[in-house]
Amino acid sequence: MTQASDIRDNEVAVQAPTPSDAALTYIGRIHTPWQTRKECPRQGDSEDGPVCELEIFEPWGAALEGVEELERIQVLYWLHEARRDLVKQSPGNTGMTKGTFAIRSPVRPNPIGISVVTLVARNGNRLQVRGLDCLDGTPLLDLKPERCPHKH
Amino acid sequence: MTQASDIRDNEVAVQAPTPSDAALTYIGRIHTPWQTRKECPRQGDSEDGPVCELEIFEPWGAALEGVEELERIQVLYWLHEARRDLVKQSPGNTGMTKGTFAIRSPVRPNPIGISVVTLVARNGNRLQVRGLDCLDGTPLLDLKPERCPHKH
Repeated sequence: MTQASDIRDNEVAVQAPTPSDAALTYIGRIHTPWQTRKECPRQGDSEDGPVCELEIFEPWGAALEGVEELERIQVLYWLHEARRDLVKQSPGNTGMTKGTFAIRSPVRPNPIGISVVTLVARNGNRLQVRGLDCLDGTPLLDLKPERCPHKH
Repeated sequence: MTQASDIRDNEVAVQAPTPSDAALTYIGRIHTPWQTRKECPRQGDSEDGPVCELEIFEPWGAALEGVEELERIQVLYWLHEARRDLVKQSPGNTGMTKGTFAIRSPVRPNPIGISVVTLVARNGNRLQVRGLDCLDGTPLLDLKPERCPHKH
């Protein structure tokens, strides 16, 4: 059984510097139905996917003012289980590789995930949204209004 | 003369925790024509804006393989001069405020900027692109293929 953190044929890892250039603060936590990476869908569906929850920690609750008026939100999160040292990857495990910056794999030097979600409801510091595909418990980094036009 | 890092009327700062949850590594540096925040355009133009340069540091050069085939790239960078403790902001300095997560201001708990650029050319570890609006010398965090359809 291959684990997602193992290296595959033709993938290339580098001796990466210890990350120490800037520090992140987790502003909250994402609640989803998926407990293992194998269960996670390949790409969240912002219209038909399950409702997930963004929980915002204090002291950041006041920063949500006005978020309830947004239809679509860009969500940034930290893929805390991803390895960070691969420069070439084989997403389908086909033996063919691509550079890490040419694909949207969670494995990258700074494993920041970005999803566009649709807002279902706000209850205080908790937002119900559709469109996520990450693990339950994923640390939240940021929310921004989405500028990209809606795909119908 | 008000500095962009000063607080404005009705803006709200919080006692933010020292960021220590995860660490970033700078994968490169962005070269733009803008030396001060006052000179930066409000939003980069991916078609008519000036050509800027993304410089990728080693050991990450190999991760660029295949990037030259992309038309549009999502660029993540670290807004290293932004304060991180405002929860309500007054972008136009009008006295009216919005929550930080309801606007795309550089001032946020984790000041990660995201721009979509069009690729002009690749020369080794340097990519010429259009669509940026950040300061010269801004640290680069990540490049991903853009999924959002092109606005014409």
